[in-house]
Amino acid sequence: MTDPLDPLDLEALEAAARDQLDRGVYDYIAGGADGELSVAGNLAAWSRLRLRPRVLRDVARVSTATTLLGSEVATPLMVAPMAYHRMAHPDGEAASAAGAAAAGALYVCSTQATMSVEEVAAAAPEAARWFQVYVVRDRGWTAELVARAAAAGYRALVLTVDVPLLGNRLRDLRNDFRLPTGLKPANAPPAGAARQRELASDVLAQAGQFDPSLTPDTIGWLAERSGLPVVVKGVLRGDDALACLDAGAAAVAVSNHGGRQLDTVVATADALAEVAAAVGDRAEVYVDGGIRRGTDVVKALALGARAVLVGRPVLWGLTAAGAAGVERVLSGLAGELQLAMALCGATGLGQLTPDLLAGPDAARS
Amino acid sequence: MTDPLDPLDLEALEAAARDQLDRGVYDYIAGGADGELSVAGNLAAWSRLRLRPRVLRDVARVSTATTLLGSEVATPLMVAPMAYHRMAHPDGEAASAAGAAAAGALYVCSTQATMSVEEVAAAAPEAARWFQVYVVRDRGWTAELVARAAAAGYRALVLTVDVPLLGNRLRDLRNDFRLPTGLKPANAPPAGAARQRELASDVLAQAGQFDPSLTPDTIGWLAERSGLPVVVKGVLRGDDALACLDAGAAAVAVSNHGGRQLDTVVATADALAEVAAAVGDRAEVYVDGGIRRGTDVVKALALGARAVLVGRPVLWGLTAAGAAGVERVLSGLAGELQLAMALCGATGLGQLTPDLLAGPDAARS
Amino acid sequence: MTDPLDPLDLEALEAAARDQLDRGVYDYIAGGADGELSVAGNLAAWSRLRLRPRVLRDVARVSTATTLLGSEVATPLMVAPMAYHRMAHPDGEAASAAGAAAAGALYVCSTQATMSVEEVAAAAPEAARWFQVYVVRDRGWTAELVARAAAAGYRALVLTVDVPLLGNRLRDLRNDFRLPTGLKPANAPPAGAARQRELASDVLAQAGQFDPSLTPDTIGWLAERSGLPVVVKGVLRGDDALACLDAGAAAVAVSNHGGRQLDTVVATADALAEVAAAVGDRAEVYVDGGIRRGTDVVKALALGARAVLVGRPVLWGLTAAGAAGVERVLSGLAGELQLAMALCGATGLGQLTPDLLAGPDAARS
Amino acid sequence: MTDPLDPLDLEALEAAARDQLDRGVYDYIAGGADGELSVAGNLAAWSRLRLRPRVLRDVARVSTATTLLGSEVATPLMVAPMAYHRMAHPDGEAASAAGAAAAGALYVCSTQATMSVEEVAAAAPEAARWFQVYVVRDRGWTAELVARAAAAGYRALVLTVDVPLLGNRLRDLRNDFRLPTGLKPANAPPAGAARQRELASDVLAQAGQFDPSLTPDTIGWLAERSGLPVVVKGVLRGDDALACLDAGAAAVAVSNHGGRQLDTVVATADALAEVAAAVGDRAEVYVDGGIRRGTDVVKALALGARAVLVGRPVLWGLTAAGAAGVERVLSGLAGELQLAMALCGATGLGQLTPDLLAGPDAARS
Repeated sequence: MTDPLDPLDLEALEAAARDQLDRGVYDYIAGGADGELSVAGNLAAWSRLRLRPRVLRDVARVSTATTLLGSEVATPLMVAPMAYHRMAHPDGEAASAAGAAAAGALYVCSTQATMSVEEVAAAAPEAARWFQVYVVRDRGWTAELVARAAAAGYRALVLTVDVPLLGNRLRDLRNDFRLPTGLKPANAPPAGAARQRELASDVLAQAGQFDPSLTPDTIGWLAERSGLPVVVKGVLRGDDALACLDAGAAAVAVSNHGGRQLDTVVATADALAEVAAAVGDRAEVYVDGGIRRGTDVVKALALGARAVLVGRPVLWGLTAAGAAGVERVLSGLAGELQLAMALCGATGLGQLTPDLLAGPDAARS
Repeated sequence: MTDPLDPLDLEALEAAARDQLDRGVYDYIAGGADGELSVAGNLAAWSRLRLRPRVLRDVARVSTATTLLGSEVATPLMVAPMAYHRMAHPDGEAASAAGAAAAGALYVCSTQATMSVEEVAAAAPEAARWFQVYVVRDRGWTAELVARAAAAGYRALVLTVDVPLLGNRLRDLRNDFRLPTGLKPANAPPAGAARQRELASDVLAQAGQFDPSLTPDTIGWLAERSGLPVVVKGVLRGDDALACLDAGAAAVAVSNHGGRQLDTVVATADALAEVAAAVGDRAEVYVDGGIRRGTDVVKALALGARAVLVGRPVLWGLTAAGAAGVERVLSGLAGELQLAMALCGATGLGQLTPDLLAGPDAARS
Repeated sequence: MTDPLDPLDLEALEAAARDQLDRGVYDYIAGGADGELSVAGNLAAWSRLRLRPRVLRDVARVSTATTLLGSEVATPLMVAPMAYHRMAHPDGEAASAAGAAAAGALYVCSTQATMSVEEVAAAAPEAARWFQVYVVRDRGWTAELVARAAAAGYRALVLTVDVPLLGNRLRDLRNDFRLPTGLKPANAPPAGAARQRELASDVLAQAGQFDPSLTPDTIGWLAERSGLPVVVKGVLRGDDALACLDAGAAAVAVSNHGGRQLDTVVATADALAEVAAAVGDRAEVYVDGGIRRGTDVVKALALGARAVLVGRPVLWGLTAAGAAGVERVLSGLAGELQLAMALCGATGLGQLTPDLLAGPDAARS
Repeated sequence: MTDPLDPLDLEALEAAARDQLDRGVYDYIAGGADGELSVAGNLAAWSRLRLRPRVLRDVARVSTATTLLGSEVATPLMVAPMAYHRMAHPDGEAASAAGAAAAGALYVCSTQATMSVEEVAAAAPEAARWFQVYVVRDRGWTAELVARAAAAGYRALVLTVDVPLLGNRLRDLRNDFRLPTGLKPANAPPAGAARQRELASDVLAQAGQFDPSLTPDTIGWLAERSGLPVVVKGVLRGDDALACLDAGAAAVAVSNHGGRQLDTVVATADALAEVAAAVGDRAEVYVDGGIRRGTDVVKALALGARAVLVGRPVLWGLTAAGAAGVERVLSGLAGELQLAMALCGATGLGQLTPDLLAGPDAARS
């Protein structure tokens, strides 16, 4: 039997995680909203794009280094904010953050982590880390949390805006999914003690605390409270992206929450071109959703993204081998990216330009 | 085993109905004309459309309320007119009407009901109800029937225009499908006694009484006899929609009869845009055919419909649990609609505008 | 078990023929060239087209009658010229011709019939019959044959132009297909006696006698020798259609020989629009390839054809029930056509206009 | 059981090779990069193109003869340069070259042959042969090799430019693929003796010797050292093609290395039109990738190629029957091409013009 981490084989790695995890946990990670057409649609959209590689460029040296809001990273990969890493491995978010740092990728810690912001920070003290924030109805608690994140050395906030209400995740509803015994959200907002205990395991109810009345003003409020730049994650339209920038966002992340919120939305690869065209040089643009290959990263950057966020594959690697698994997933993707760049005739990320992509007609082959 | 009514899982609910119903009855409900490509095409067309949700709108309060020809409804859902509900459940159309009323949806009673117009009215006396009419060769009988409907509090007539002849429904022909013993069409037109008995069970022959010589003039004739506004159901073209309005129709319903009449017709999602563009603000436009998700409703309204008609899922709910089953199907869809609106950043139906839909290229993902 | 002839179910009828015929015979009928992509492509192209039916037309009376080069027919259906009907049924081409006549369709007798032109004529003396001609290297024999056809009351010649060489029919090559013992081509061109015996069963070798050097001049030569109008069958391009008319053709038939000659050619439904546009009102245009439903006929006529040729389904009907089977296949299709016309709001073939078809985007549903 | 070489049935021939070869060898031949989407995409792109054949042309004589950089060939087919033929058959490249010569096709010998340039030349001394060159880091050795090729009568060099680094061939990595015992690359570049032994079997490491810093200047350098015209193979863009010609290339070959280097690149059929349009009459253009039928060759030439390269099918034929197998594969394709030309109404390769191809809409059938 071959090792799905070397060479990186994400399909086999997911199958291994499916075997290893409880059904409810696996389904929570894998599932999407409604019929899960957008989960599949994200993947298909990257695969469908066709590359037009350049030849006879000197590619003896290829660099994947870049900066993300000024932070230097060795590769334009970020770990997408995801909840409850300790469901996948006892070392939890600390392992994920350490693995990301070892691979030269940026780590985005979720509000719904099973370890505190400070514990996660301690696992990768020198590395580029950002903090993802859900704004809950108790604004004071949110303000406190983002101040803690700033103090713990997170360099930006990632405001998730596509969960005013929780999507219709049929797998979790059918499974009556709850956090495994012994796990709890380390950063859960305050509530009565009984309610707190209940919430601790009720994953779906936790989302009910999110504030559904956010507006672009929230961006400035967060920036002010934290003193950090704010990335708005969950944007799928050019007009929304501009509204976010006008309201003080430092960057936007094109995302449909991995197909977990609203089904049959536009694939992120398709939304990216519109958003990148609207934003132009005003701000950095990132994208997530279905990134599984180095060639997917090349396509995302050619469409205008500065970096991509990788989600489920990180949890599969964490399940398989803790921090080392996360590192190997991200290093594997980084290696695939470097190879794909060389085979496209590109020695730096700035050379990943739109002409590397064929028009839609070619996408049918 | 999970309950397909909570959370609503229409695929499982249909499978349950298939298990529970006689083969002939299930086939009558499920089947379409010829190769049933339009049955599948309706479903595929909604799934294929891609949403472009808006973010950072205050969606703390989302309302699905609207009016349909002046009648207030809590949700833009109608029960499509369908024949012979007592095949699905002994409580028949009364249960369907009561379930619809409980869910805040409008009920359209079929000429081919297995309960009289008065019995159905009595089941939901206060609720918004419309009456679907087939014009038969005996015009006097038709005039009498629509007068009864008006007297029983039905607030509009729905004139079905796509059955001048019955479609080539191969399942019913192969099954030699007849009404189960003990059931008869409550509103069957008059005929000799022997012929009447025969017709009572011969579903296909009943349709032979429909008048194949209808013209737009029929619309005015019906309005005059009933004193009710007339909705023309079965329109797939903009020019036909305008001809109906010119002849006095109050609204049109884009429909291909659930794929049961002419196979390989245009999907209703595809026809809707053309019809809505032609009609503009002159009249209300509705649509049916393959609506299975709250996101389908969002798409229909974004394309210009004021409401949608739901057909087969209502009969599956009726089969499963009578009135309660109908209520849960419709409430489930209404809840999905409300959630989808919130996730699209819309707080009212008026905000479901065409920009929520991506162009055709994105539909391939 | 249901009868695939009533209601007409061509899929089941083909399955029955597959069970009944020798494998080699079935494969000869069913097969195509190379990978048989064009066999499937013809079928898919008709299915993919979407109808835009009209409503509220008085369709109490619907006529499918028309004329084909002046001959009156009850329905715009022709039996496509096909070889060796006695492989399917001992009554052979006589049964096919009689069945076609009974259904009001036009019969096209093949050069490669297993009964003589006169025998076939005698089976349907009053009916509209045309004769299909392969021009062989021995022009004298061809001249004699078409003169016999004219004398036997065939009213037009159908010149097949897409077999200068025989297509790469892998099934027949693998099966080493030969005519069953006792059958022989009744109209085989002269050859030495030994060669004649060999040819009598070697289906593939027979085609080697066809003249590969035909040019448009052949059209005029045939018309002159026979005194009959000449239909050119096998045209897929507008420019070729015009060249045929300029050379004296009375009509053209858009055909790719049922996918049996060159694989991956344009589907006939796709070629038809181009040819019909080029020809305009100068001449009649027919089409074959994959016609399996009444709706297919509606689409063909809406695209500009005056009639369609039906091939394999006729042989399946012949296999099942001789002349009666042929009649029921053709009557079934004619009935489907009449129903589809009514459901499209058309009372005559002249009302089957291009606006009945949706644009290519709708074809994806 | 039928012989997959007569009539040529490449699907069956591949299945036979799969049965006969060691798994690792078969996978090395069949595999591609990453998810192998481009392996499949090349095939699909040719199949998807639709032909518009001409009729009533005199095709009694059809010639497939042409010249390739001035060398006369009987058919516009070339054996693509592929490594290690002795893995498929003990007679190795000598058999392939002899088979190609017997079929009238041009042979391109790979740098990574298991027989020396001189041995291969001796197997087909009179035939048109070209030599494929990988430029390795040791330029002196490369210069020596191409001089030997020129001396051995190879008439052109084929510079492969799409392997600056080896693609991510997951099958070979999982199989830890190495050359079977007893085989070694006959033209391996010099290295220390121990390293040499290691390299001799480590197929993947050998590619590590290729020079990743090639630029268009390499073209002129090769031409000068060898005195031969240089064909640049691996071009997928019009701008790159022109840069190659500007740098002295005599021709370009549109290729994505059979999908073995960068996955999800544009299919060669799709890239060909762009490259041919850019090059115009300045130089010859060839194409490879997924050519499996005579109709594929017709399409390639109609899109602007002067000839095609055939890869994996040659190795399947070699596996099955040595030189005779190669000859039959190529003769079979040449025969299919000739037949397809006749059925398109073309008597020479110059008549294979773009109007033989339908537009993209027709490609959906």
